[in-house]
Amino acid sequence: MRRRKPVVREERITLAHGAGGKATQTLIEAVFLEAFRNPMLAPLEDGALLRIGSEQTAFTTDSYVVSPLFFPGGDIGDLAVNGTVNDLAMCGARPVHLSAGFILEEGFPVADLRRITTSMAEAASAAGVTIVTGDTKVVQRGKADGCYITTAGVGLVEHPVTLSASRARPGDAVIVSGPIGAHGAAIMLARGEFDLEASIASDTAPLYGIVSDLLNALPQHVRCLRDATRGGVATVLNEVARASEVAVVLDEEQIPVAPEVTGVCELLGLDPLYVACEGRFVTVVDAEHAGQALDVLRAHPLGAEAAIAGTVAADPPGLVLLRTAFGGTRVVDVLVGDPLPRIC
Amino acid sequence: MRRRKPVVREERITLAHGAGGKATQTLIEAVFLEAFRNPMLAPLEDGALLRIGSEQTAFTTDSYVVSPLFFPGGDIGDLAVNGTVNDLAMCGARPVHLSAGFILEEGFPVADLRRITTSMAEAASAAGVTIVTGDTKVVQRGKADGCYITTAGVGLVEHPVTLSASRARPGDAVIVSGPIGAHGAAIMLARGEFDLEASIASDTAPLYGIVSDLLNALPQHVRCLRDATRGGVATVLNEVARASEVAVVLDEEQIPVAPEVTGVCELLGLDPLYVACEGRFVTVVDAEHAGQALDVLRAHPLGAEAAIAGTVAADPPGLVLLRTAFGGTRVVDVLVGDPLPRIC
Repeated sequence: MRRRKPVVREERITLAHGAGGKATQTLIEAVFLEAFRNPMLAPLEDGALLRIGSEQTAFTTDSYVVSPLFFPGGDIGDLAVNGTVNDLAMCGARPVHLSAGFILEEGFPVADLRRITTSMAEAASAAGVTIVTGDTKVVQRGKADGCYITTAGVGLVEHPVTLSASRARPGDAVIVSGPIGAHGAAIMLARGEFDLEASIASDTAPLYGIVSDLLNALPQHVRCLRDATRGGVATVLNEVARASEVAVVLDEEQIPVAPEVTGVCELLGLDPLYVACEGRFVTVVDAEHAGQALDVLRAHPLGAEAAIAGTVAADPPGLVLLRTAFGGTRVVDVLVGDPLPRIC
Repeated sequence: MRRRKPVVREERITLAHGAGGKATQTLIEAVFLEAFRNPMLAPLEDGALLRIGSEQTAFTTDSYVVSPLFFPGGDIGDLAVNGTVNDLAMCGARPVHLSAGFILEEGFPVADLRRITTSMAEAASAAGVTIVTGDTKVVQRGKADGCYITTAGVGLVEHPVTLSASRARPGDAVIVSGPIGAHGAAIMLARGEFDLEASIASDTAPLYGIVSDLLNALPQHVRCLRDATRGGVATVLNEVARASEVAVVLDEEQIPVAPEVTGVCELLGLDPLYVACEGRFVTVVDAEHAGQALDVLRAHPLGAEAAIAGTVAADPPGLVLLRTAFGGTRVVDVLVGDPLPRIC
């Protein structure tokens, strides 16, 4: 597969450029990668691997602009900790240190800021990381939306394994660590734009513990790890299919989704495969060890409902296919547009 | 000096909370430090010192919300690189890796984003750092102001010296690395709110080279380093006076300020001592080695106009005093309010 050089055709940034799908990918490749080109950035994994002295470390950052700031199961504070902690975990790195940059809108209630920092402190403690440095900027009313947070994280690579979206091979198993889409569904409901009542809490959680269990048990058999945030499981698996030049074939009936999430998605016309999770990941494991991987994940509280959701095939390379419950097969394309802006 | 526990009295965030002065200090101590309390964060220096394996590293972050995004001498892109690089330099650390998180407003011109990333790439190259990881979020129109950038940086501490605002001792010399206030004055003019014509360019520049020269020459005699950004030289020296429990006595006639900057400040009713620099730092050096320090700084292109601007005295502890050109003395207090919002 020879790929054309990506080009941003739009003259102005759209919400789709932040959705994690096709437009985001193009923007990253055509603008950011083009300007900053270097071997550490180029793999476009969840974080960069850096050697510092004799230590292998991982370094990552994410900005959080979730709306609303508070929602069932969490808030922007624990999201900003867990999201960055999880990007380190996906590199096989134990999260150690975080930085936090706050952009506050004039008029933002100090009590809300306290609630957010308390939640960050609790999440940091639960994830075993320390927030060691920070910054605060304030912009005028109407130039932000209450509070934006950017965290960066430094982790120590404790598992000397090679994890990459490009390592999937035909025959491998695709495992999802638990029921998908709860975070995105919780945010949609919390916006109150729909007259829906459902009790869905975000799945936001720190994933290094469960990831570490998996890498300890099967250091040689895990091909890649990706947390299924913006763009959901579908987007992550499209990245794997493309980077590895393989097909991913999902079995709809095997993908764990909570009934409430399925219900809300049906009402809103969303496909749970594209809905963000903040405490779930996808891993590709070699076929022989898939059962063992599943056992390890299910032994952890965050993986109790882990499932083998599909397999890797040779053809058609670069595509994700879904075998539906009715026996049909359809292509699960990369996300186009942004059905759920500001989900994280 | 026994200090009372800081309390945020306002119910809502004001621009002053982002100005780097008294309100920022209170917010940091009463909200952020209170929630995140840990030994690495507690010193509230420009960055945190972390041991990674056998290496001593520094880690820092800053969010950039400067308005306008483009101004004479630079733009938000090189500012976001140099600002974070300089925070590492002030820890005696060679800047090595940067992360960059972008928060873009829907409708932001892609051409402007390209101009910013090109400028970041050039600044990174000039500073010897690599941008290794990043993130992009997009928010709806009216929820940001074009483009905000948060960078975090990792550096290697190459100078095994103890630098701290708490190390100034009576008799020490206070050195300013060059003419102050150009960045803030350039931004004010670039806003076009005043009918003023003056050619002032921002002083934005990476400072590790000149800092490294100083620390190489006088490893044992430099007490502290602070870049004089938000709140300017006055704010930095108030931090030193407070942390070291000493007085800082400045000599107005010895403080380097470009005539154009003095002129603009007079017209706008600003004191250059409070106006932000982005390529200048303040250092406190023991008296015996002040002359040598000055020679080292002046030998570097960024320090050609370095000057001994004052001295450290025992009394009154915690205060900064200015001996004016007319022979009087006045207190240079911590910044209250925000005369220049969104300067960086």
